[in-house]
Amino acid sequence: MKALRFEDERLRLADVPAPSREGEAVVRVRLAGVCNTDLEIVRGYAGFRGTLGHEFVGVVERAPGAAELKGRRVVGEINAGCGACALCRAGDSRHCPARTVLGIRGRDGAFAEALQLPAVNLLPVPDEVTDERAVFCEPLAAACAIIERVNVTEEMRVAVVGDGKLGLLCAQALKVLTGARVTLVGKHTSKLRIARRRDIETFKIEELPPSFDRAFDVTVEASGSPRGFETALGLLRPRGTLVLKSTFHAVTELNAAPVVVDEIQIVGSRCGRFAPALELLRRGAVDVDSLFHEEFPLSEGVRAFERAAEPGVLKVLLRP
Amino acid sequence: MKALRFEDERLRLADVPAPSREGEAVVRVRLAGVCNTDLEIVRGYAGFRGTLGHEFVGVVERAPGAAELKGRRVVGEINAGCGACALCRAGDSRHCPARTVLGIRGRDGAFAEALQLPAVNLLPVPDEVTDERAVFCEPLAAACAIIERVNVTEEMRVAVVGDGKLGLLCAQALKVLTGARVTLVGKHTSKLRIARRRDIETFKIEELPPSFDRAFDVTVEASGSPRGFETALGLLRPRGTLVLKSTFHAVTELNAAPVVVDEIQIVGSRCGRFAPALELLRRGAVDVDSLFHEEFPLSEGVRAFERAAEPGVLKVLLRP
Repeated sequence: MKALRFEDERLRLADVPAPSREGEAVVRVRLAGVCNTDLEIVRGYAGFRGTLGHEFVGVVERAPGAAELKGRRVVGEINAGCGACALCRAGDSRHCPARTVLGIRGRDGAFAEALQLPAVNLLPVPDEVTDERAVFCEPLAAACAIIERVNVTEEMRVAVVGDGKLGLLCAQALKVLTGARVTLVGKHTSKLRIARRRDIETFKIEELPPSFDRAFDVTVEASGSPRGFETALGLLRPRGTLVLKSTFHAVTELNAAPVVVDEIQIVGSRCGRFAPALELLRRGAVDVDSLFHEEFPLSEGVRAFERAAEPGVLKVLLRP
Repeated sequence: MKALRFEDERLRLADVPAPSREGEAVVRVRLAGVCNTDLEIVRGYAGFRGTLGHEFVGVVERAPGAAELKGRRVVGEINAGCGACALCRAGDSRHCPARTVLGIRGRDGAFAEALQLPAVNLLPVPDEVTDERAVFCEPLAAACAIIERVNVTEEMRVAVVGDGKLGLLCAQALKVLTGARVTLVGKHTSKLRIARRRDIETFKIEELPPSFDRAFDVTVEASGSPRGFETALGLLRPRGTLVLKSTFHAVTELNAAPVVVDEIQIVGSRCGRFAPALELLRRGAVDVDSLFHEEFPLSEGVRAFERAAEPGVLKVLLRP
């Protein structure tokens, strides 16, 4: 089958054998999304070599031990733990040290005609949720995961820094899930408009009012840039919480003194559970349609990556 | 009166007027301690100019509105809030944006014959606690403050990185207050021995066993060095908490990706409440005697600072 692979330091379409790992489900991919992490991997992040892609919706072709899934349309959680270590036994395969991660670590991904995952990772997609929306389940789950790590309440002021796909999903998810007053800080009028249509206050980063300094209870760094980190830190009140959401590759400078003096908390947040995200998609509570930019056939995957890397481009989808 | 001041970019003994701020208590200083923050201020940190010193024990000379304190031996919390802002009204003068801080920010400090603080900041010292122990109340309170910010339980493994005064106090306070298994990581055999006498496991930083990688629930950075920060991060399990305790001036590099991938939490922690620390001193639950290095008269304050800055030196005290 065809697969879009990163190997020998380049991205290319290749012919690969069909999935054959024992005991796992096989999913025929219907639609997959290109994420910034994919672009980072192609730039060297995480050292992954193989078939890329971890955002997908597909149909189960076979599912050993979970026959009820066969023929169902599914999305899939991307971390597969060893099942034996203390973390896995406690239900946290997302941090299993021996885990594989779809298209990111030790496991071929979704930019292919078919993929494999343990059947336990798969969730059926409700009929009301189209493929074009279901494919956003993974990044939306990551946005929802913030509230697993930080207690955000209705009275709080929250700022999300970064108006890319991740920032737009985080701002919307936080508003819908918590009722907090959410402000999105970005650079692009057209992207900020998507959030404003969902009653989220928006500001361009260079137009932030001075009264916003040290005014927020929680800030979310979703820009992936040192400047975004600095902005998110400056907006935070003493004892506030900065959520680091971007796995940007760059090293940023951390000046420890203000973090200690203001007793700031910095919390890393990565993958989330899919069920709450699927429910938001079913209810239409989050606008993902506006995040769509362009669809390419898998055969044009290399061009799709080029497009996804252009400034201002939101979600690029691949269809096998 | 005599005071040890940092002004015109140098430390010097000066003659200054006696304290005269309206409505505040005046304390005659009996003994004061030199802290690394004092050394940092002399190197330019925090931009403070005036009389240094924030660790002290003294006797109340006058206390408007708190006559019961007159003649009492006291220690004093060092942050004085405006009393009017939202934070002060919520009882958190430690983060009042208009606060003064004894010998650190907008308020002359304890390296003088007398100092001033609001009477509400003063706590009588129990008779059982000698001056030589009471003078450790401020840094011990800072060590105790960790558990205000992080929930540390008996089942947890905690590592403190840095075997200076702060690290030795943090390791002891955490062990006594939580019952957790505490490991102190440092560089100096003689300092590590102080912790071992209190049943704290110790390791030299270059002799840490590989099995300690990613094995700790909570780590405390108390070394004030980028290497200490890196070590504290490497010891932490996924979803673990790194407590930043040192207000070191240096900028350290923060590689965001592992913080996000392992969902690490970094928590700044500064000053603590004095009451729990005084109680530990009263019970003799923490060894502060071993932290004493040398006492100087206030008149030799400049020499005392030179001594305190020498490698391997623990607490230097000043007696007016």
